[in-house]
Amino acid sequence: MRPIGRVRSVLAARADAPRQADEGAPPAELLLDPEYAAAAADLRPGMRIVILTWFDRADRTTQAVHPRGDRERPPTGVFATRSPDRPNPIGLHEVTVTAVAGTTITVDGLEALNGTPILDIKPVLDAVADR
Amino acid sequence: MRPIGRVRSVLAARADAPRQADEGAPPAELLLDPEYAAAAADLRPGMRIVILTWFDRADRTTQAVHPRGDRERPPTGVFATRSPDRPNPIGLHEVTVTAVAGTTITVDGLEALNGTPILDIKPVLDAVADR
Repeated sequence: MRPIGRVRSVLAARADAPRQADEGAPPAELLLDPEYAAAAADLRPGMRIVILTWFDRADRTTQAVHPRGDRERPPTGVFATRSPDRPNPIGLHEVTVTAVAGTTITVDGLEALNGTPILDIKPVLDAVADR
Repeated sequence: MRPIGRVRSVLAARADAPRQADEGAPPAELLLDPEYAAAAADLRPGMRIVILTWFDRADRTTQAVHPRGDRERPPTGVFATRSPDRPNPIGLHEVTVTAVAGTTITVDGLEALNGTPILDIKPVLDAVADR
């Protein structure tokens, strides 16, 4: 697995990040490696995309978490949660492209920290007229 | 990146696989490694989940593909397609859990080949009552 680029964001630390994009994540830039220019060539403003990231600051030994960090509640196995702490900490983010400049892709709310490695970009399926 | 398990499916080769799950993919089993039993403990029949897989038979050098393999049409950058051939060939599959027996999870239609490594399992966000 080799990152295709990195996230540029005002979010610097996990304490700053909202739990989900609909809880107020800021816009961000996807700084893709220029070697992937051909793969990125058909991304356009307005497209709904899924970004796959690698949560490089996650704890990969965690198998269960307390929902919303509430220690009064029983722990839940991480495969039934969206916790970033999990054996393979891959983040899944559905966003809208707002601008494209070469291999720099700007998107609306993204709940990933500055510097987070990007693994892949895919179109949202129901947004694909002809796949 | 270390697989958490493997897919068991009647699909043996890429030629057998439908392009998307809604095109007639067969049920499949997720054979998770028993060391992840705690992470899988809260998966239940009826849950909608996203399975992340590693398309180990993909061509990672491909940056553009002809839509639906139609060579009359112009090639499209893979980040705007769901082609399995891409720099990091991670598959994204939305399915419903139909049975759970220990760390063997049965799901409805899955368009992944027999033996495909599984990287992660997450609940579908709009199906999560309380995350």
